[in-house]
Amino acid sequence: MPLAEHRTDTHDDTLLYLEIQHFYGRQMRHLDSGAVEEWARTFTEDGVFTANAHPEPQRGRAAIEAGARKAAAQLAADGVQRRHWLGMLQVDPGPDGSVVARTYALITSTAQGGQAGIQLSCTCDDVLVREDGQLKVRHRRVFRDDLATGRGE
Amino acid sequence: MPLAEHRTDTHDDTLLYLEIQHFYGRQMRHLDSGAVEEWARTFTEDGVFTANAHPEPQRGRAAIEAGARKAAAQLAADGVQRRHWLGMLQVDPGPDGSVVARTYALITSTAQGGQAGIQLSCTCDDVLVREDGQLKVRHRRVFRDDLATGRGE
Amino acid sequence: MPLAEHRTDTHDDTLLYLEIQHFYGRQMRHLDSGAVEEWARTFTEDGVFTANAHPEPQRGRAAIEAGARKAAAQLAADGVQRRHWLGMLQVDPGPDGSVVARTYALITSTAQGGQAGIQLSCTCDDVLVREDGQLKVRHRRVFRDDLATGRGE
Repeated sequence: MPLAEHRTDTHDDTLLYLEIQHFYGRQMRHLDSGAVEEWARTFTEDGVFTANAHPEPQRGRAAIEAGARKAAAQLAADGVQRRHWLGMLQVDPGPDGSVVARTYALITSTAQGGQAGIQLSCTCDDVLVREDGQLKVRHRRVFRDDLATGRGE
Repeated sequence: MPLAEHRTDTHDDTLLYLEIQHFYGRQMRHLDSGAVEEWARTFTEDGVFTANAHPEPQRGRAAIEAGARKAAAQLAADGVQRRHWLGMLQVDPGPDGSVVARTYALITSTAQGGQAGIQLSCTCDDVLVREDGQLKVRHRRVFRDDLATGRGE
Repeated sequence: MPLAEHRTDTHDDTLLYLEIQHFYGRQMRHLDSGAVEEWARTFTEDGVFTANAHPEPQRGRAAIEAGARKAAAQLAADGVQRRHWLGMLQVDPGPDGSVVARTYALITSTAQGGQAGIQLSCTCDDVLVREDGQLKVRHRRVFRDDLATGRGE
């Protein structure tokens, strides 16, 4: 395929794009399966999770784990399987040698014996860094589409 | 992983597959955020956008931009955030050194204060070319699943 | 992007991840378009398809083809276009030099003249092998989210 030539992306950038996809595949499985310690370890120790649905950010791995643990307990009590799909990834250079990874996020929800459906549509903007060879989220910003419009992005 | 050996795809084809994913991530963000000039520039100057929901194709970048501008204004007036997910990418050699990129397209819609939901399921068949190092859509065909069935693809 | 350096995945593993995405793009199109022979050939001759919605596994390519043929005939009779989206791919080494590829699976359904919607949310766990240069599914396990919860994965 001639189109494979003359690309402007570097080889390393291209492989990083793919590595981020794989990172998200593992990360969101941790969350959706209630593996909250593994989930928290996908953030840096001082990682921050902000969401336009939350009055306050979760600051630090312990807070991120506690938040996920509470949500997982509620879902288990309700018999609901939630799944986070991240897609339409866009990767750009970030500050301090980090990378900004932006995705669309679709959250589905299925009750035992019930009908699967879309729960939320969001965007997810991450600042990713590498620690000991592993990607980590240093900052995540989740923006629910239903809570505001017209933010120009 | 032994499976990583003996592949039949060439290295260049593999990286092109990934570059197309990234291209779609950027392109559909332009559309969904109302950045209609940037959206139009992801097509060639003589790009064509056809859809089984439209009586006439949009021919040329100006027509493609005008169509998107009208749709974006309506969505903004309605307070609706639409998102286009392209996935299940298949890439094949096309005519004249181009590439045929085929995706499933899921369009979600969320009204401010409302419930996110699926608006449409489609397929999207693109002919992509490279101009000045950048991928561009020379021809796009969008086919809504609800408007016909059994087209054998 | 400095993050592109110091990765822990090998180059071959990374390209395999992408090749599996492309394999799924082609495979699920076969199923969704009713190309049941091509669908069956994406499994090994002795491939097994198990699902928590099915009382018995489909064992062997002939059984897998027969099952798909029956389903395709029903969908055609009903005028329904079904689409299988596999995403959030995670790849790990499997037994005997195989690869375990795990995805989230979202099945959408659109009736002619009707509204597109989510039919099912599932997980799909595959054991993949390579035959004559081509990836094949040796074992697939599909797990519908509505039929059980809390399986810890």
